[in-house]
Amino acid sequence: MDGIRVIACDVFGTTVDWYTGVTEQVAELLPGVDAGAFASQWRERYLPSMANVREGRREWTYLDTLHRESLDELLERHGLDPDEATRRRLVRAWHHLPAWPDSVEGLTRLRTRHTLAALSNGGFALLTNLVKAARLPFDCILSAELARTYKPDPAVYRTAARLLDVAPEEVLMVAAHGWDIDGAREAGLRTAFLERPGEKGPHQPADRGVAADVSVASFPELAEVLSPAGAGR
Amino acid sequence: MDGIRVIACDVFGTTVDWYTGVTEQVAELLPGVDAGAFASQWRERYLPSMANVREGRREWTYLDTLHRESLDELLERHGLDPDEATRRRLVRAWHHLPAWPDSVEGLTRLRTRHTLAALSNGGFALLTNLVKAARLPFDCILSAELARTYKPDPAVYRTAARLLDVAPEEVLMVAAHGWDIDGAREAGLRTAFLERPGEKGPHQPADRGVAADVSVASFPELAEVLSPAGAGR
Repeated sequence: MDGIRVIACDVFGTTVDWYTGVTEQVAELLPGVDAGAFASQWRERYLPSMANVREGRREWTYLDTLHRESLDELLERHGLDPDEATRRRLVRAWHHLPAWPDSVEGLTRLRTRHTLAALSNGGFALLTNLVKAARLPFDCILSAELARTYKPDPAVYRTAARLLDVAPEEVLMVAAHGWDIDGAREAGLRTAFLERPGEKGPHQPADRGVAADVSVASFPELAEVLSPAGAGR
Repeated sequence: MDGIRVIACDVFGTTVDWYTGVTEQVAELLPGVDAGAFASQWRERYLPSMANVREGRREWTYLDTLHRESLDELLERHGLDPDEATRRRLVRAWHHLPAWPDSVEGLTRLRTRHTLAALSNGGFALLTNLVKAARLPFDCILSAELARTYKPDPAVYRTAARLLDVAPEEVLMVAAHGWDIDGAREAGLRTAFLERPGEKGPHQPADRGVAADVSVASFPELAEVLSPAGAGR
C-alpha cells in the first residue's frame, strides 16, 4: 500500500447507510407502504438507470433526475399518487443519510496522512449536502458529474485522479460494491473492499468476498492497515 | 441578503495571505533576492497570463503551468538560474499559504447557516492541498478548472452555481478584488467585497472601496452581517 496519496471513498452504502435513511423518509412520507421494501426496490433501479447514460444510450442526466424517474415508476406500480411536493421530498431523502457509526472516526484518522475525497455517483450538490449534514471530514467532493458519466465507467475514476493531479495508482478506491472495485481497478486505481453486511437491508444480500488489494470491515480498520499504530511513521 | 444559500469565497488574497506565504518561500529558495518584490512581480503576471486562456488565445492551461511560465521569465529577468527542483518547489509555494488570522473563525461561523465553497482560479488539486494545509472549513472545493476558463469569465461563477444546484442569485461571492466582484455580478451572483489592506504587500496598493452588495473588513464581520447575533433566527 505504499505510494497512496489520495483515498477516494464511495458514499451510498460504503460511508453512509442509505437503506436506513431512505426507509425512514419513505415511512414518514408514504404511510402504509412497506418502507424498507420500497427503499430496496428504488435502489434496485439505480444501476440500470445509470447504465443508459454510461453506455451512451442517453445523454448526461443528473442522479436526482434518475431517482425521480425510478420513483415515479415505482409509485405507479404500487398504485400510489402522492403530490409533487412529496415526490420532491422523497428524491431529497438521498441528500441526507446517516453515516455508518465508524465513518467519522475512521475518515478523521485517514485524513491525517492522505487527501480524502468522496467519489460517488451522487451529483456534486447532493454529495455536498450529504457530506455537510453527516459531518463527514472529506477534503474535497468529487462526483461522477464532473466526468459526466457514471461509475464504473473508468472515466470517472481517471477524472478524479486528474483533478487531484496524481497518477491513478496513487489513488485508493474504497467501496462496498464489487462493481465499483472492479471499475476502479480497470481504471488503474488501487482498491479497498469495505464489507458492509447490512448495506442493502434485509431484502438483498450485501456484496461479500470481493477481490481487492485490501479487504476491511470498517474505516478505522483501513486506517490501521494503511498506518499501523506504532509503525513509527 | 435574503435567499443566499451558498457563500463562494475567493482564496488568494481574500482567504489566505499569498504575499507573506510566497515571500517566505522565495526568501528560503532564492537567497539574496528581494523576496517581497519578487513575489509581487510574480503575482503581477497572474491576470495577464490567465487572460490568454480566458479570451481564447490559448487553450485551457492549468494555473501551475502559468505560474511556472511566469516564474521562468522572471528568473531570467533577474539573471537567476536555479535548478529544476527549486523551480518546482517555488511553483508549489502557491499550494501552501497561511490563512488570514480571521479566516478560520469567520468561515466556521458562515458555514453553520450556508454551504461554504472555495471558488478560485487555483486548480482543483492546488486548492485541495491549500485548504487542507490551512485547515479552512470549506464544504467543497470549486475551481475555475471545472469550467476550463478563469475568473472573471462568467462561466466560472455560473458553473459553481450549477454544480451546487442553485440559481446564480443564491450565491454570494466574497472577494478582495474588484475584477472578481465585477465578474461575479455580471454572472448574476450577489457580491461581498472583503477589504484586505495588506493583500498585495507593501509594493502595490490593495483594492479599496469596490462597489458590491455588501462591504466588510473580515469574515467574522460578514457572518455578523448575514446572521446578526440576537436576530432570533
